[in-house]
Amino acid sequence: MPEKDSKGNEGNKGYNNATEGDKDAYEKLTNMGKRMVGEIKEGMSPTFITAIRSRSNIFVDEKKGFLKLGDKRETRRFLNLSQAKTFMQTIAVANKTKQFIEQGLHTSIRGLYYQLKFTLGEDLDENMFEEQTESNALIEDLEASLAIKREDLHLTTDRKGVLAGPIKIVDRFGGDEITIDGQKQGRSGWMIPSDVDNGMEIESVDANYVLVVEKDALWQRLNEDKFWKKEKAIIITPKGQSSRGTRRLLRKLADLGLPIYCFMDADAWGWYIYWTIKTGSMNLAYLGQDFTVPEARFVGVTMSDIKTYDFLQKLTIKAKDVDIKRANDMMNYPWIKKHEEWVRELKLVLKTKKKLEQDALQGPRLTFVGEYLREKIGNGDVLP
Amino acid sequence: MPEKDSKGNEGNKGYNNATEGDKDAYEKLTNMGKRMVGEIKEGMSPTFITAIRSRSNIFVDEKKGFLKLGDKRETRRFLNLSQAKTFMQTIAVANKTKQFIEQGLHTSIRGLYYQLKFTLGEDLDENMFEEQTESNALIEDLEASLAIKREDLHLTTDRKGVLAGPIKIVDRFGGDEITIDGQKQGRSGWMIPSDVDNGMEIESVDANYVLVVEKDALWQRLNEDKFWKKEKAIIITPKGQSSRGTRRLLRKLADLGLPIYCFMDADAWGWYIYWTIKTGSMNLAYLGQDFTVPEARFVGVTMSDIKTYDFLQKLTIKAKDVDIKRANDMMNYPWIKKHEEWVRELKLVLKTKKKLEQDALQGPRLTFVGEYLREKIGNGDVLP
Repeated sequence: MPEKDSKGNEGNKGYNNATEGDKDAYEKLTNMGKRMVGEIKEGMSPTFITAIRSRSNIFVDEKKGFLKLGDKRETRRFLNLSQAKTFMQTIAVANKTKQFIEQGLHTSIRGLYYQLKFTLGEDLDENMFEEQTESNALIEDLEASLAIKREDLHLTTDRKGVLAGPIKIVDRFGGDEITIDGQKQGRSGWMIPSDVDNGMEIESVDANYVLVVEKDALWQRLNEDKFWKKEKAIIITPKGQSSRGTRRLLRKLADLGLPIYCFMDADAWGWYIYWTIKTGSMNLAYLGQDFTVPEARFVGVTMSDIKTYDFLQKLTIKAKDVDIKRANDMMNYPWIKKHEEWVRELKLVLKTKKKLEQDALQGPRLTFVGEYLREKIGNGDVLP
Repeated sequence: MPEKDSKGNEGNKGYNNATEGDKDAYEKLTNMGKRMVGEIKEGMSPTFITAIRSRSNIFVDEKKGFLKLGDKRETRRFLNLSQAKTFMQTIAVANKTKQFIEQGLHTSIRGLYYQLKFTLGEDLDENMFEEQTESNALIEDLEASLAIKREDLHLTTDRKGVLAGPIKIVDRFGGDEITIDGQKQGRSGWMIPSDVDNGMEIESVDANYVLVVEKDALWQRLNEDKFWKKEKAIIITPKGQSSRGTRRLLRKLADLGLPIYCFMDADAWGWYIYWTIKTGSMNLAYLGQDFTVPEARFVGVTMSDIKTYDFLQKLTIKAKDVDIKRANDMMNYPWIKKHEEWVRELKLVLKTKKKLEQDALQGPRLTFVGEYLREKIGNGDVLP
């Protein structure tokens, strides 16, 4: 990377604090540009090569157990009437994010959109830069093409996970360095940021396992009971579907050899959250193994729990159509139907037409949630 | 309050750590119960008296400037066929929450629902205990009747605000005491909890003002620029509509004499978030002044900004129908139409049929957001 910011008029850290991710992304962006310049010099149309992200190119990595893209590639040419506009926009995105790395500054996809609109004017599809809609196709193109993460392009993403427990994390940010002690986060917990790689390291862990709790309300319940202290566990809530930061952190914790147990509702949404953590999802298959945790196990709640814990029988509620549909769909996914435990569980849902929420474990007494988890994890009574 | 837990079989803190809020709520619940027992002993039907929360009983406190309930009360009788079921459920809720206070434990409204279902069986409307739908009518009844907050009833609520800046907060939680330093929260910030009153105190503040930033992405931008350090400001993002905890914290910060500046989109949603902070909303009028900040000011973005900052002209986007409708509605609210600055702003939206997002300020350079805020706040260029 160059010695200083070529613009010189902004940036608060610049190159001096470049992380490994910065350097990797910067080099790949630079090489892509050089290749295109080379093509132009040879009188050819510049090309952009990226992986095809449609279903025809999504596969299950059978050995490791996650969804990934196949080898199909797409080559886009600037001198192609139907591709010229997208091509130009992709290059503009690459150029802007390269500047962000030079400046040592971050922004959201929406911020990137306005930077481009400022430069290029009206000729931009704003929906391509709506993070919420997952239609930020240009960013995905770059990620897939260069095999980098958008976080390395200095793009921040939605964040909402929370953590507590016996772990220390170093955060080097904006010239400061702080150590986050997961045991000293009080009632709030530590908010998992957008980027858990660049300038961030796990300093030490003294935990037996990681517990992922679907709902923040249950996480607060366990945090109040100091479950993380009694069990020596790191407790994390993704607050529903996991953010990128949370999924990436779970991968890093699994890489340290920690078992990852997931505690979700027994319904369509709970299963979806679990399987997205474990195998990824169709939409995000291009992210590959850096964002999936095939080792994850499902501790509950399950409809089979009713056999062990009688009282849950009267705390089940009526399954919705979406739960029934999802249960049916799941039984046909090859990576799910191969597990007989899951097939048995899903059949129970279809038979009873009932669902069970994790909140129901508070029925007999508020502290029962922790008792349940200790017992099930202790007995290894989990689904694959 | 009694010396020890009458159940004895659960609770991790119990009475010994009772807060002022605990004691107040406990006393009011006990008195309500005693009154009902008295009515029964006199051969009368027990009664439950609560404030009417419908629009007919919502008023603007003209002097202070927030929405509040009027004096209309409703008396419910157990010996009334149409009221008996709700009456019984209200008493069951009061009884359970009193136990939570005794136990020193907290749960969500959903957890409360399952405790009741465990005791009472099927005869419960689960939709009355769905926090998300704001239809948790039984809790609102109790809050309005006893003039207490649900947080004092040991009910946790959805939380999502984040804070950074020159403030220290003490959190006594689960037997521990920690001090949160708002200047040492790294990239994450401190997550504003559900309850910022019980067991929590502001230890010290060294700030000139509080800045409320609608979107987390912009908050992250300002946090990276250390805006809070340069400006000696506390920066808070509610991440969209404010949670109860965030609104309550803003009230407490305003009580310390800090100006509260709000930085939102110039559109229906941004305005709604602002006015909910400032005056409250129809749905939440029963909460009254503990959750509103009439002193709040709107720093931007405004459509009038386009005059000062030329480049914003080309960064406006088309207003949606909901924005136009909202602008029209707002001009008819008495507490808004009395401010000519707001009328002028709303007319500009109606005339141009354009809206402006706070993200657009990143157009010329990422750090411009901070420059804009410094200039506008410095010049007192804000809307009431």
